[in-house]
Amino acid sequence: MSLIFRQLFEKESSTYTYILADKETGEALIIDPVKETLERDLSLLSEMNLKLKYTLETHVHADHITSAAQLKKETGAKIVLGSGSLLQTADILLKNNESLKFGTQKLTALSTPGHTIACTSYKINNYVFTGDTLLIRGCGRTDFQEGSPQDLFNSVRNKLFLLDDETIVYPGHDYKGRTSSTIGEEKKNNLRLKLEITEEQFVEIMKNLKLPYPKQIDKALPANLKHGCLI
Amino acid sequence: MSLIFRQLFEKESSTYTYILADKETGEALIIDPVKETLERDLSLLSEMNLKLKYTLETHVHADHITSAAQLKKETGAKIVLGSGSLLQTADILLKNNESLKFGTQKLTALSTPGHTIACTSYKINNYVFTGDTLLIRGCGRTDFQEGSPQDLFNSVRNKLFLLDDETIVYPGHDYKGRTSSTIGEEKKNNLRLKLEITEEQFVEIMKNLKLPYPKQIDKALPANLKHGCLI
Repeated sequence: MSLIFRQLFEKESSTYTYILADKETGEALIIDPVKETLERDLSLLSEMNLKLKYTLETHVHADHITSAAQLKKETGAKIVLGSGSLLQTADILLKNNESLKFGTQKLTALSTPGHTIACTSYKINNYVFTGDTLLIRGCGRTDFQEGSPQDLFNSVRNKLFLLDDETIVYPGHDYKGRTSSTIGEEKKNNLRLKLEITEEQFVEIMKNLKLPYPKQIDKALPANLKHGCLI
Repeated sequence: MSLIFRQLFEKESSTYTYILADKETGEALIIDPVKETLERDLSLLSEMNLKLKYTLETHVHADHITSAAQLKKETGAKIVLGSGSLLQTADILLKNNESLKFGTQKLTALSTPGHTIACTSYKINNYVFTGDTLLIRGCGRTDFQEGSPQDLFNSVRNKLFLLDDETIVYPGHDYKGRTSSTIGEEKKNNLRLKLEITEEQFVEIMKNLKLPYPKQIDKALPANLKHGCLI
């Protein structure tokens, strides 16, 4: 397998960033990079002799500010989101099942709305990057940015859970230091979305979470709507 | 490849714990587990239907307390360290190049002293777990527990760096959220141990670090000398 893969962690928001690259050509993409770790990520790309072609977001984040605009300034990397995103200023908007090539590698977008209206997962080989749609043993909240528990349930159960059980799940966050899971494991152990839970039960769970207003949203959302340029 | 692999993170001490298991038999081992994340690790083992056979330590830690004794109590897992360790009470003391089998899998100990007198790395397939001997772009300190910069230099340059360049390095810690590296990358980019640095230069670097007294050592070391049982 000629795919280079790196998982990276940002402590403050417990966000995972991923670098994927083609070993043959050095062409690379980054998923969900964070403003605070821009220097680390640029150093890594340079030390590994990678050429950043794309910055992908799984969605417009409300808990941290993206470094997409800064990465574009530094490397020229095009900004990619799922179609239907509020961010029509992205360079590329991928529809469901549309692919992106980097070197000899191909990554495919899976439209997985619910946490936000245009959440997108990305699949390559037996890896799936699920953003906040499917977390390890949990899922993202569905009470802002046109989130919908029905949509999230449908995205997980009728799209992500149709992937092979051995598919490795790389989430957008984990708050307990777990770095990955598998589709098979989540079908069985996800506290909200395992197979025996019905859509009605899931909607009820999500309605009763009584979560506080996200503390970073008023700063992060306006910034992320400009790909991380601070206003 | 029928190896199950999980990397886990403990935020307070930035420690990585690793679970490895054989897919066929469910026999598992854990490397460097931390007291604070015992419940998480036990849950994971149970959810994944794994039988913990061994708890391995890369060394006697000075920055966190191991959960080895508690894991042994809960699961019966034997405690494993490198030979030469202060901890002669371990169930198994692996010599250099000695192997441990779990199901159809085989892991091999590499004696890599320097950070402490009996630091041990563990190799399986193209993964190497380097503890605090080789960190991403750095290495562990060498100023206590019979550490020695000369020994550490020798362990890295004449043992770990002889592994294939593609070997994935899984360290004992990272303080910048990086989760892995490769031997090839460290040969080129490790700030202290890259190939152009001589042993004399390395010893000089390590002598001049002027590091503070480790804040957890007075609590962690006595506890870890009892495999994590608190005194």
